Amino acid sequence: MSESKDNNLRDFIPEPALRRLPWYLAYVSMLRDKHVEHVSSTHISRELNVDASQIAKDLSFLNIKGKTRIGYNVVHLEKELRNFLGFSRTHNAVIFGAGSLGAALMQDSGLSRYGLRVVAGFDINPEIIGAQIGGVPVYSVDELDSRCRRLKADIGIITVPVDHAQDAADMLISAGVKALWNFTPVRIRVADGIVIANTSIYAHLAVMYNRLDNM
Amino acid sequence: MSESKDNNLRDFIPEPALRRLPWYLAYVSMLRDKHVEHVSSTHISRELNVDASQIAKDLSFLNIKGKTRIGYNVVHLEKELRNFLGFSRTHNAVIFGAGSLGAALMQDSGLSRYGLRVVAGFDINPEIIGAQIGGVPVYSVDELDSRCRRLKADIGIITVPVDHAQDAADMLISAGVKALWNFTPVRIRVADGIVIANTSIYAHLAVMYNRLDNM
Repeated sequence: MSESKDNNLRDFIPEPALRRLPWYLAYVSMLRDKHVEHVSSTHISRELNVDASQIAKDLSFLNIKGKTRIGYNVVHLEKELRNFLGFSRTHNAVIFGAGSLGAALMQDSGLSRYGLRVVAGFDINPEIIGAQIGGVPVYSVDELDSRCRRLKADIGIITVPVDHAQDAADMLISAGVKALWNFTPVRIRVADGIVIANTSIYAHLAVMYNRLDNM
Repeated sequence: MSESKDNNLRDFIPEPALRRLPWYLAYVSMLRDKHVEHVSSTHISRELNVDASQIAKDLSFLNIKGKTRIGYNVVHLEKELRNFLGFSRTHNAVIFGAGSLGAALMQDSGLSRYGLRVVAGFDINPEIIGAQIGGVPVYSVDELDSRCRRLKADIGIITVPVDHAQDAADMLISAGVKALWNFTPVRIRVADGIVIANTSIYAHLAVMYNRLDNM
Protein backbone atom coordinates (compact mmCIF):
# COMPACT_ATOMS: atom_id res chain seq x y z
CA MET A 1 0.00 0.00 0.00
CA SER A 2 1.50 3.35 -0.93
CA GLU A 3 1.64 6.14 1.55
CA SER A 4 -0.18 9.35 0.80
CA LYS A 5 1.94 12.40 0.27
CA ASP A 6 0.62 15.08 2.53
CA ASN A 7 0.26 13.25 5.81
CA ASN A 8 0.28 15.40 8.82
CA LEU A 9 3.06 14.03 10.98
CA ARG A 10 1.01 13.49 14.11
CA ASP A 11 -1.42 11.20 12.28
CA PHE A 12 1.12 9.25 10.34
CA ILE A 13 1.69 5.74 11.55
CA PRO A 14 3.83 3.20 9.64
CA GLU A 15 1.90 0.28 8.19
CA PRO A 16 3.57 -2.44 10.32
CA ALA A 17 2.55 -0.59 13.49
CA LEU A 18 -0.96 -0.09 12.14
CA ARG A 19 -1.20 -3.80 11.43
CA ARG A 20 -0.25 -4.64 15.02
CA LEU A 21 -2.92 -2.41 16.58
CA PRO A 22 -5.79 -4.85 15.82
CA TRP A 23 -3.86 -7.52 17.81
CA TYR A 24 -3.79 -5.20 20.80
CA LEU A 25 -7.47 -4.38 20.30
CA ALA A 26 -8.43 -8.06 20.24
CA TYR A 27 -6.49 -8.70 23.43
CA VAL A 28 -7.72 -5.58 25.24
CA SER A 29 -11.35 -6.40 24.32
CA MET A 30 -10.89 -9.78 25.97
CA LEU A 31 -9.53 -8.11 29.12
CA ARG A 32 -12.49 -5.71 29.16
CA ASP A 33 -14.89 -8.68 28.98
CA LYS A 34 -13.08 -10.11 32.00
CA HIS A 35 -13.44 -6.75 33.83
CA VAL A 36 -9.67 -6.25 34.05
CA GLU A 37 -9.07 -2.55 34.77
CA HIS A 38 -5.47 -1.88 33.77
CA VAL A 39 -2.90 -3.45 31.49
CA SER A 40 0.79 -2.67 31.02
CA SER A 41 2.73 -2.95 27.78
CA THR A 42 4.86 -5.62 29.53
CA HIS A 43 1.71 -7.65 30.12
CA ILE A 44 0.53 -7.24 26.50
CA SER A 45 4.06 -8.11 25.41
CA ARG A 46 4.07 -11.44 27.27
CA GLU A 47 0.66 -12.36 25.88
CA LEU A 48 1.21 -11.37 22.25
CA ASN A 49 4.91 -12.05 21.92
CA VAL A 50 5.69 -8.53 20.73
CA ASP A 51 8.51 -6.52 22.28
CA ALA A 52 7.19 -4.27 25.12
CA SER A 53 9.06 -1.20 23.87
CA GLN A 54 7.55 -1.80 20.42
CA ILE A 55 4.07 -1.87 21.96
CA ALA A 56 4.68 1.35 23.87
CA LYS A 57 5.93 2.96 20.65
CA ASP A 58 2.93 1.72 18.63
CA LEU A 59 0.51 2.99 21.27
CA SER A 60 2.25 6.39 21.35
CA PHE A 61 0.41 7.19 18.09
CA LEU A 62 -2.85 7.07 20.03
CA ASN A 63 -4.25 9.79 22.22
CA ILE A 64 -3.64 7.82 25.42
CA LYS A 65 -1.02 7.75 28.17
CA GLY A 66 -0.23 4.77 30.37
CA LYS A 67 0.57 5.33 34.03
CA THR A 68 3.88 4.14 35.50
CA ARG A 69 3.51 0.78 37.27
CA ILE A 70 -0.26 0.68 36.54
CA GLY A 71 -0.36 0.75 32.76
CA TYR A 72 -3.25 1.69 30.52
CA ASN A 73 -6.88 1.90 31.52
CA VAL A 74 -8.44 -1.03 29.61
CA VAL A 75 -11.79 0.59 28.73
CA HIS A 76 -10.08 3.77 27.57
CA LEU A 77 -7.43 1.90 25.59
CA GLU A 78 -10.03 -0.23 23.81
CA LYS A 79 -12.05 2.85 22.88
CA GLU A 80 -8.97 4.72 21.61
CA LEU A 81 -7.86 1.72 19.58
CA ARG A 82 -11.30 1.31 17.98
CA ASN A 83 -11.45 5.02 17.18
CA PHE A 84 -7.91 5.18 15.85
CA LEU A 85 -8.46 2.14 13.65
CA GLY A 86 -11.64 3.64 12.24
CA PHE A 87 -13.79 0.76 13.46
CA SER A 88 -16.20 3.05 15.33
CA ARG A 89 -17.07 5.12 12.24
CA THR A 90 -19.25 3.84 9.40
CA HIS A 91 -17.66 3.52 5.94
CA ASN A 92 -20.03 2.79 3.06
CA ALA A 93 -18.84 0.17 0.61
CA VAL A 94 -20.13 -1.46 -2.54
CA ILE A 95 -19.21 -4.93 -3.76
CA PHE A 96 -18.37 -5.38 -7.44
CA GLY A 97 -19.00 -9.04 -8.26
CA ALA A 98 -21.71 -10.84 -6.28
CA GLY A 99 -20.40 -14.35 -7.05
CA SER A 100 -19.34 -16.77 -4.35
CA LEU A 101 -16.79 -14.59 -2.53
CA GLY A 102 -18.77 -11.36 -3.03
CA ALA A 103 -21.96 -12.99 -1.75
CA ALA A 104 -20.03 -14.43 1.20
CA LEU A 105 -18.80 -10.95 2.16
CA MET A 106 -22.34 -9.54 1.84
CA GLN A 107 -23.42 -12.13 4.39
CA ASP A 108 -20.56 -11.46 6.80
CA SER A 109 -22.25 -9.28 9.40
CA GLY A 110 -18.89 -9.16 11.20
CA LEU A 111 -17.69 -6.45 8.80
CA SER A 112 -20.16 -3.95 10.26
CA ARG A 113 -18.58 -4.36 13.68
CA TYR A 114 -15.38 -3.10 12.05
CA GLY A 115 -17.03 -0.03 10.57
CA LEU A 116 -17.76 -1.39 7.09
CA ARG A 117 -21.32 -1.12 5.84
CA VAL A 118 -21.90 -2.90 2.54
CA VAL A 119 -24.69 -0.86 0.95
CA ALA A 120 -24.97 -2.50 -2.48
CA GLY A 121 -23.65 -5.24 -4.70
CA PHE A 122 -23.21 -5.06 -8.47
CA ASP A 123 -23.10 -7.84 -11.00
CA ILE A 124 -23.69 -8.58 -14.67
CA ASN A 125 -25.56 -11.86 -14.04
CA PRO A 126 -29.30 -11.25 -14.74
CA GLU A 127 -30.17 -14.13 -12.40
CA ILE A 128 -28.97 -12.30 -9.32
CA ILE A 129 -29.63 -8.67 -10.34
CA GLY A 130 -32.63 -7.54 -8.30
CA ALA A 131 -31.99 -10.10 -5.56
CA GLN A 132 -30.96 -9.37 -1.98
CA ILE A 133 -27.99 -11.21 -0.47
CA GLY A 134 -27.62 -10.95 3.29
CA GLY A 135 -30.03 -8.00 3.14
CA VAL A 136 -27.88 -6.18 0.56
CA PRO A 137 -29.50 -5.39 -2.82
CA VAL A 138 -27.73 -6.50 -6.00
CA TYR A 139 -27.92 -4.06 -8.93
CA SER A 140 -26.81 -4.19 -12.53
CA VAL A 141 -23.31 -2.87 -13.21
CA ASP A 142 -25.03 -0.32 -15.51
CA GLU A 143 -26.32 1.41 -12.39
CA LEU A 144 -22.90 1.56 -10.69
CA ASP A 145 -22.28 5.24 -11.28
CA SER A 146 -25.63 6.60 -10.16
CA ARG A 147 -25.99 4.23 -7.20
CA CYS A 148 -22.47 4.78 -5.85
CA ARG A 149 -22.91 8.53 -5.81
CA ARG A 150 -26.37 8.36 -4.23
CA LEU A 151 -25.20 5.87 -1.60
CA LYS A 152 -22.05 7.90 -0.87
CA ALA A 153 -19.87 4.83 -1.23
CA ASP A 154 -16.19 5.51 -0.45
CA ILE A 155 -14.95 1.96 -0.74
CA GLY A 156 -15.25 -0.48 -3.63
CA ILE A 157 -14.73 -4.18 -2.94
CA ILE A 158 -13.52 -6.14 -5.96
CA THR A 159 -14.59 -9.79 -6.07
CA VAL A 160 -14.80 -10.41 -9.83
CA PRO A 161 -12.97 -13.00 -11.93
CA VAL A 162 -9.37 -11.98 -12.61
CA ASP A 163 -9.98 -10.89 -16.20
CA HIS A 164 -12.47 -8.24 -15.03
CA ALA A 165 -10.53 -6.91 -12.05
CA GLN A 166 -8.91 -3.90 -13.75
CA ASP A 167 -12.16 -2.90 -15.49
CA ALA A 168 -14.06 -3.16 -12.21
CA ALA A 169 -11.44 -0.94 -10.55
CA ASP A 170 -11.63 1.68 -13.32
CA MET A 171 -15.44 1.76 -13.17
CA LEU A 172 -15.51 2.05 -9.37
CA ILE A 173 -13.03 4.93 -9.42
CA SER A 174 -14.96 6.77 -12.09
CA ALA A 175 -18.07 6.26 -9.92
CA GLY A 176 -16.35 8.24 -7.17
CA VAL A 177 -14.95 5.50 -4.95
CA LYS A 178 -11.78 6.59 -3.08
CA ALA A 179 -10.46 3.21 -1.92
CA LEU A 180 -10.41 -0.26 -3.43
CA TRP A 181 -10.34 -3.48 -1.44
CA ASN A 182 -9.07 -5.98 -3.98
CA PHE A 183 -9.73 -9.65 -3.26
CA THR A 184 -8.43 -10.85 -6.65
CA PRO A 185 -4.80 -11.88 -7.17
CA VAL A 186 -4.56 -9.26 -9.94
CA ARG A 187 -2.17 -6.32 -9.52
CA ILE A 188 -4.56 -3.47 -10.11
CA ARG A 189 -3.20 -0.15 -11.37
CA VAL A 190 -4.71 3.02 -9.96
CA ALA A 191 -3.94 6.71 -10.20
CA ASP A 192 -2.25 8.53 -7.32
CA GLY A 193 -4.67 9.44 -4.57
CA ILE A 194 -6.62 6.19 -4.70
CA VAL A 195 -6.08 3.85 -1.75
CA ILE A 196 -5.69 0.20 -2.56
CA ALA A 197 -5.71 -2.72 -0.14
CA ASN A 198 -4.99 -6.20 -1.44
CA THR A 199 -6.35 -9.22 0.38
CA SER A 200 -5.46 -12.25 -1.62
CA ILE A 201 -6.79 -15.03 0.56
CA TYR A 202 -5.77 -17.55 -2.08
CA ALA A 203 -2.13 -16.44 -1.82
CA HIS A 204 -2.32 -17.26 1.90
CA LEU A 205 -3.59 -20.71 0.94
CA ALA A 206 -0.60 -21.20 -1.36
CA VAL A 207 1.82 -20.29 1.42
CA MET A 208 0.05 -22.67 3.82
CA TYR A 209 0.06 -25.57 1.34
CA ASN A 210 3.73 -25.08 0.60
CA ARG A 211 4.72 -25.07 4.28
CA LEU A 212 2.52 -28.13 4.88
CA ASP A 213 4.14 -30.04 2.03
CA ASN A 214 7.63 -29.15 3.24
CA MET A 215 7.21 -30.19 6.85
CA MET B 1 4.79 -17.69 9.11
CA SER B 2 7.75 -19.66 10.37
CA GLU B 3 9.79 -21.75 8.04
CA SER B 4 10.03 -25.45 8.68
CA LYS B 5 13.42 -26.79 9.64
CA ASP B 6 14.15 -29.65 7.34
CA ASN B 7 13.29 -28.21 3.96
CA ASN B 8 14.88 -29.88 1.09
CA LEU B 9 16.69 -27.10 -0.71
CA ARG B 10 15.22 -27.68 -4.13
CA ASP B 11 11.68 -27.21 -2.80
CA PHE B 12 12.37 -24.23 -0.65
CA ILE B 13 11.02 -20.97 -1.94
CA PRO B 14 11.06 -17.77 0.11
CA GLU B 15 7.63 -16.52 1.17
CA PRO B 16 7.74 -13.22 -0.83
CA ALA B 17 8.38 -15.20 -4.02
CA LEU B 18 5.63 -17.65 -3.14
CA ARG B 19 3.24 -14.76 -2.64
CA ARG B 20 4.03 -13.37 -6.09
CA LEU B 21 3.33 -16.65 -7.90
CA PRO B 22 -0.49 -16.29 -7.64
CA TRP B 23 -0.17 -12.94 -9.45
CA TYR B 24 1.61 -14.67 -12.31
CA LEU B 25 -0.98 -17.44 -12.28
CA ALA B 26 -3.86 -14.96 -12.49
CA TYR B 27 -2.20 -13.22 -15.43
CA VAL B 28 -1.21 -16.40 -17.25
CA SER B 29 -4.75 -17.82 -16.85
CA MET B 30 -6.05 -14.70 -18.57
CA LEU B 31 -3.59 -15.18 -21.44
CA ARG B 32 -4.65 -18.83 -21.77
CA ASP B 33 -8.29 -17.74 -22.03
CA LYS B 34 -7.22 -15.41 -24.84
CA HIS B 35 -5.37 -18.29 -26.55
CA VAL B 36 -1.99 -16.59 -26.26
CA GLU B 37 0.69 -19.27 -26.73
CA HIS B 38 3.86 -17.83 -25.23
CA VAL B 39 4.76 -15.18 -22.71
CA SER B 40 8.13 -13.76 -21.70
CA SER B 41 9.11 -12.55 -18.25
CA THR B 42 9.57 -9.09 -19.80
CA HIS B 43 5.95 -9.18 -20.89
CA ILE B 44 4.73 -10.33 -17.45
CA SER B 45 6.97 -7.64 -15.93
CA ARG B 46 5.35 -4.82 -17.93
CA GLU B 47 1.88 -6.04 -17.05
CA LEU B 48 2.38 -6.69 -13.32
CA ASN B 49 4.98 -4.06 -12.55
CA VAL B 50 7.43 -6.57 -11.10
CA ASP B 51 11.08 -6.56 -12.18
CA ALA B 52 11.65 -9.05 -15.06
CA SER B 53 14.73 -10.58 -13.46
CA GLN B 54 12.71 -11.08 -10.27
CA ILE B 55 10.04 -12.92 -12.26
CA ALA B 56 12.61 -15.17 -13.94
CA LYS B 57 14.11 -15.91 -10.52
CA ASP B 58 10.70 -16.68 -8.97
CA LEU B 59 9.81 -18.98 -11.86
CA SER B 60 13.15 -20.80 -11.56
CA PHE B 61 11.66 -22.64 -8.54
CA LEU B 62 9.21 -24.28 -10.93
CA ASN B 63 9.90 -27.22 -13.15
CA ILE B 64 9.71 -25.13 -16.31
CA LYS B 65 12.16 -23.47 -18.68
CA GLY B 66 11.45 -20.48 -20.89
CA LYS B 67 12.90 -20.32 -24.38
CA THR B 68 15.10 -17.43 -25.43
CA ARG B 69 13.12 -14.82 -27.40
CA ILE B 70 9.91 -16.88 -27.17
CA GLY B 71 9.38 -17.16 -23.45
CA TYR B 72 7.24 -19.65 -21.56
CA ASN B 73 4.53 -21.83 -23.04
CA VAL B 74 1.37 -20.36 -21.48
CA VAL B 75 -0.56 -23.63 -20.99
CA HIS B 76 2.47 -25.33 -19.48
CA LEU B 77 3.31 -22.39 -17.24
CA GLU B 78 -0.26 -22.17 -15.94
CA LYS B 79 -0.28 -25.88 -15.15
CA GLU B 80 3.11 -25.75 -13.40
CA LEU B 81 2.05 -22.72 -11.35
CA ARG B 82 -1.20 -24.39 -10.25
CA ASN B 83 0.68 -27.56 -9.32
CA PHE B 84 3.47 -25.77 -7.53
CA LEU B 85 1.01 -23.65 -5.55
CA GLY B 86 -0.90 -26.77 -4.51
CA PHE B 87 -4.13 -25.56 -6.14
CA SER B 88 -4.56 -28.73 -8.20
CA ARG B 89 -4.49 -31.07 -5.17
CA THR B 90 -7.37 -31.35 -2.70
CA HIS B 91 -6.73 -30.34 0.92
CA ASN B 92 -9.45 -31.19 3.44
CA ALA B 93 -10.31 -28.46 5.89
CA VAL B 94 -12.72 -27.98 8.77
CA ILE B 95 -14.09 -24.66 9.96
CA PHE B 96 -14.16 -23.96 13.68
CA GLY B 97 -16.87 -21.36 14.27
CA ALA B 98 -19.81 -21.31 11.87
CA GLY B 99 -20.85 -17.72 12.65
CA SER B 100 -20.98 -15.01 10.00
CA LEU B 101 -17.43 -15.29 8.63
CA GLY B 102 -17.28 -19.09 9.02
CA ALA B 103 -20.62 -19.50 7.26
CA ALA B 104 -19.46 -17.11 4.53
CA LEU B 105 -16.37 -19.24 3.89
CA MET B 106 -18.50 -22.40 3.79
CA GLN B 107 -20.49 -20.78 1.02
CA ASP B 108 -17.46 -19.61 -0.96
CA SER B 109 -17.25 -22.23 -3.67
CA GLY B 110 -14.20 -20.37 -5.00
CA LEU B 111 -12.02 -22.01 -2.35
CA SER B 112 -12.42 -25.41 -4.01
CA ARG B 113 -10.89 -24.04 -7.21
CA TYR B 114 -7.80 -23.34 -5.11
CA GLY B 115 -7.60 -26.86 -3.71
CA LEU B 116 -9.43 -26.29 -0.44
CA ARG B 117 -12.35 -28.58 0.34
CA VAL B 118 -14.28 -27.59 3.45
CA VAL B 119 -15.61 -30.92 4.73
CA ALA B 120 -17.23 -29.87 8.01
CA GLY B 121 -18.02 -26.96 10.29
CA PHE B 122 -18.07 -27.02 14.08
CA ASP B 123 -19.90 -24.77 16.48
CA ILE B 124 -21.29 -24.65 20.01
CA ASN B 125 -24.57 -22.99 19.01
CA PRO B 126 -27.36 -25.64 19.20
CA GLU B 127 -29.40 -23.66 16.65
CA ILE B 128 -26.94 -24.37 13.83
CA ILE B 129 -25.57 -27.77 14.91
CA GLY B 130 -27.09 -30.32 12.54
CA ALA B 131 -27.67 -27.72 9.80
CA GLN B 132 -25.92 -27.59 6.43
CA ILE B 133 -24.36 -24.33 5.26
CA GLY B 134 -23.41 -24.18 1.58
CA GLY B 135 -23.71 -27.97 1.55
CA VAL B 136 -21.28 -28.36 4.46
CA PRO B 137 -22.60 -30.07 7.62
CA VAL B 138 -22.23 -28.29 10.97
CA TYR B 139 -21.40 -30.52 13.94
CA SER B 140 -21.05 -29.95 17.66
CA VAL B 141 -17.55 -29.07 18.86
CA ASP B 142 -17.81 -32.22 21.01
CA GLU B 143 -17.45 -34.25 17.82
CA LEU B 144 -14.36 -32.38 16.61
CA ASP B 145 -11.84 -35.06 17.45
CA SER B 146 -13.64 -38.05 15.95
CA ARG B 147 -14.89 -36.18 12.87
CA CYS B 148 -11.52 -34.58 12.03
CA ARG B 149 -9.75 -37.93 12.08
CA ARG B 150 -12.44 -39.68 10.07
CA LEU B 151 -12.55 -36.85 7.51
CA LYS B 152 -8.74 -36.72 7.28
CA ALA B 153 -8.75 -32.96 7.79
CA ASP B 154 -5.27 -31.40 7.54
CA ILE B 155 -6.32 -27.79 7.83
CA GLY B 156 -8.33 -26.07 10.56
CA ILE B 157 -9.90 -22.70 9.78
CA ILE B 158 -10.46 -20.53 12.85
CA THR B 159 -13.41 -18.14 12.66
CA VAL B 160 -14.45 -17.91 16.32
CA PRO B 161 -14.72 -14.82 18.54
CA VAL B 162 -11.29 -13.63 19.75
CA ASP B 163 -11.66 -15.04 23.26
CA HIS B 164 -12.03 -18.57 21.88
CA ALA B 165 -9.29 -18.46 19.25
CA GLN B 166 -6.50 -20.08 21.28
CA ASP B 167 -8.81 -22.82 22.61
CA ALA B 168 -10.05 -23.55 19.10
CA ALA B 169 -6.44 -23.83 17.90
CA ASP B 170 -5.49 -26.20 20.72
CA MET B 171 -8.51 -28.41 20.08
CA LEU B 172 -7.88 -28.54 16.32
CA ILE B 173 -4.26 -29.50 16.82
CA SER B 174 -5.15 -32.23 19.29
CA ALA B 175 -7.67 -33.49 16.70
CA GLY B 176 -4.76 -34.02 14.30
CA VAL B 177 -4.88 -30.90 12.16
CA LYS B 178 -1.45 -29.90 10.77
CA ALA B 179 -2.13 -26.33 9.66
CA LEU B 180 -4.25 -23.51 11.02
CA TRP B 181 -5.76 -20.74 8.94
CA ASN B 182 -6.49 -18.06 11.50
CA PHE B 183 -9.00 -15.36 10.54
CA THR B 184 -9.08 -13.80 14.01
CA PRO B 185 -6.79 -10.91 14.98
CA VAL B 186 -5.48 -13.04 17.87
CA ARG B 187 -1.82 -14.09 17.91
CA ILE B 188 -2.22 -17.83 18.28
CA ARG B 189 0.60 -19.84 19.87
CA VAL B 190 1.34 -23.24 18.40
CA ALA B 191 4.04 -25.86 18.91
CA ASP B 192 6.83 -26.29 16.35
CA GLY B 193 5.74 -28.30 13.36
CA ILE B 194 2.29 -26.72 13.06
CA VAL B 195 1.82 -24.37 10.12
CA ILE B 196 -0.04 -21.17 10.82
CA ALA B 197 -1.37 -18.68 8.29
CA ASN B 198 -2.94 -15.46 9.54
CA THR B 199 -5.51 -13.67 7.41
CA SER B 200 -6.76 -10.75 9.39
CA ILE B 201 -9.09 -9.11 6.93
CA TYR B 202 -10.04 -6.58 9.58
CA ALA B 203 -6.42 -5.42 9.85
CA HIS B 204 -6.54 -4.70 6.11
CA LEU B 205 -9.65 -2.62 6.74
CA ALA B 206 -7.81 -0.62 9.41
CA VAL B 207 -4.95 0.12 7.01
CA MET B 208 -7.42 1.17 4.32
CA TYR B 209 -9.38 3.48 6.65
CA ASN B 210 -6.20 5.09 7.90
CA ARG B 211 -4.93 5.82 4.39
CA LEU B 212 -8.36 7.11 3.38
CA ASP B 213 -8.51 9.49 6.34
CA ASN B 214 -5.00 10.80 5.66
CA MET B 215 -5.46 11.59 1.98
